Amino acid sequence: MQMNPNKDTQLCMSLSGRPGNFGLRFHNHLYEQLGLNFYYKAFSSQDLPGAVGGIRALGIRGCGVSMPFKEACIALVDELDASASAIQSINTIVNTNGHLKAYNTDYIAVAQLLDSHRIPKDTRFALRGSGGMAKAVASALRDGGYRDGVIVARNAGAGQALADSLGYAWQAELGELRPQMLINVTPIGMNGGPEADQLAFPVEAIQAARTLFDVVAVPAETPLILRARMEGKQVITGLEVIAIQALEQFVLYTGVRPSAEQFQQAVAFARA
Amino acid sequence: MQMNPNKDTQLCMSLSGRPGNFGLRFHNHLYEQLGLNFYYKAFSSQDLPGAVGGIRALGIRGCGVSMPFKEACIALVDELDASASAIQSINTIVNTNGHLKAYNTDYIAVAQLLDSHRIPKDTRFALRGSGGMAKAVASALRDGGYRDGVIVARNAGAGQALADSLGYAWQAELGELRPQMLINVTPIGMNGGPEADQLAFPVEAIQAARTLFDVVAVPAETPLILRARMEGKQVITGLEVIAIQALEQFVLYTGVRPSAEQFQQAVAFARA
Repeated sequence: MQMNPNKDTQLCMSLSGRPGNFGLRFHNHLYEQLGLNFYYKAFSSQDLPGAVGGIRALGIRGCGVSMPFKEACIALVDELDASASAIQSINTIVNTNGHLKAYNTDYIAVAQLLDSHRIPKDTRFALRGSGGMAKAVASALRDGGYRDGVIVARNAGAGQALADSLGYAWQAELGELRPQMLINVTPIGMNGGPEADQLAFPVEAIQAARTLFDVVAVPAETPLILRARMEGKQVITGLEVIAIQALEQFVLYTGVRPSAEQFQQAVAFARA
Repeated sequence: MQMNPNKDTQLCMSLSGRPGNFGLRFHNHLYEQLGLNFYYKAFSSQDLPGAVGGIRALGIRGCGVSMPFKEACIALVDELDASASAIQSINTIVNTNGHLKAYNTDYIAVAQLLDSHRIPKDTRFALRGSGGMAKAVASALRDGGYRDGVIVARNAGAGQALADSLGYAWQAELGELRPQMLINVTPIGMNGGPEADQLAFPVEAIQAARTLFDVVAVPAETPLILRARMEGKQVITGLEVIAIQALEQFVLYTGVRPSAEQFQQAVAFARA
């Protein structure tokens, strides 16, 4: 990618249980397009403190953090950005001369998407899920001024705790509820998962909604997104989330914001 | 360099007080020529245990170690190859599933060069220097069966200790000695150093010798090498040492041995 690596090349990296290709292709493509002397490498590790210690000792500029490290990393960094402190979950570490500051660009991406898709603040929504990503999405909604929400989660403990922490209602099943926005933050519809061919919400609820938001990014067109498009609904996809969160990481690491066209080309390249 | 980095790309690196470009250009060029999915990055660090811990935790495949880390690394690895254990100085770490084995490819390179230049075993030599590299060169001579040697070093403590440990004589100055091979393992003649324009040995000794061996690699043509060439002497250069030691690192990291032509092209590329 980087055509002419030299001793001043800066390294950025990702740390995840199962490294993928999207992030490294996205970042390396933009480094090349913008002529930045960076290289991006995907890592996994069995030793999180050793890995974060290595980031510090080797002066690695930035690190994307994925499952299962998003919470455990918190104790290993020096500072939490507001995007990470509220939800106590990080996905990005920025190393400035040995000082590690952690961010959550998933939260930032969701906030941007609610804005760019012009979702009205009084939209009634139901969010399905109660894990770390559900926390990031629900927090972005709450901080964005979306007050009329229900957390739908079969895991009563996690679901209720998430709802309570943000001032939302909780229920185990969607039932007869027909909100204007339906948000899936579960693995339902994910490639290779046991529910890859399932819809995260009943067809009647999809038909009654205005907006469908699916955080699942692989495939970009989940059964839920496909059905919503067929019904003529507004959609927000998981691909938009992972692309924007990667873009915000890129800006944090390099200090450079690509143009909209460069960004779209990098997304297309990273998916290929 | 590496045209298509992906999640399976393996990282190799160097760790030194002042990273240079030779190693990373050499390795990355060969990765590309041979189609190997590797990338080489030069690092420095203020925290050696953290850096070596990072190599382990991140599964970084190999690490070249330069000044000032060659001795301090010994306590941080799991195993020493024979090339490193005798001299207690390493310049290469190979990481095999978290097990770190250290080598000294300087020692290996010197041994190869004595052989490829067909230096007779009964050659009388004087080696000037008493630092870590002098130890590697002198050990390679001793293990190669060169018994008739003098260590020349103004530092009496280090010089005498080195000579004693290998069964050589020591003297502070060359004096009237006129050995068949003169070996410079001091910074005399090195670019940017205070003695960049000096000869490590007197002209009369150069004229009386058969072979001049200068470990200084930058410039490739030191005053000593230039003078020796002018006098029609056989020369062994520091560039040959750093090139061969890098080649042996490459083989240790990748398991692949480039052809002689690929090797020469990589050296030419790395110097450019």
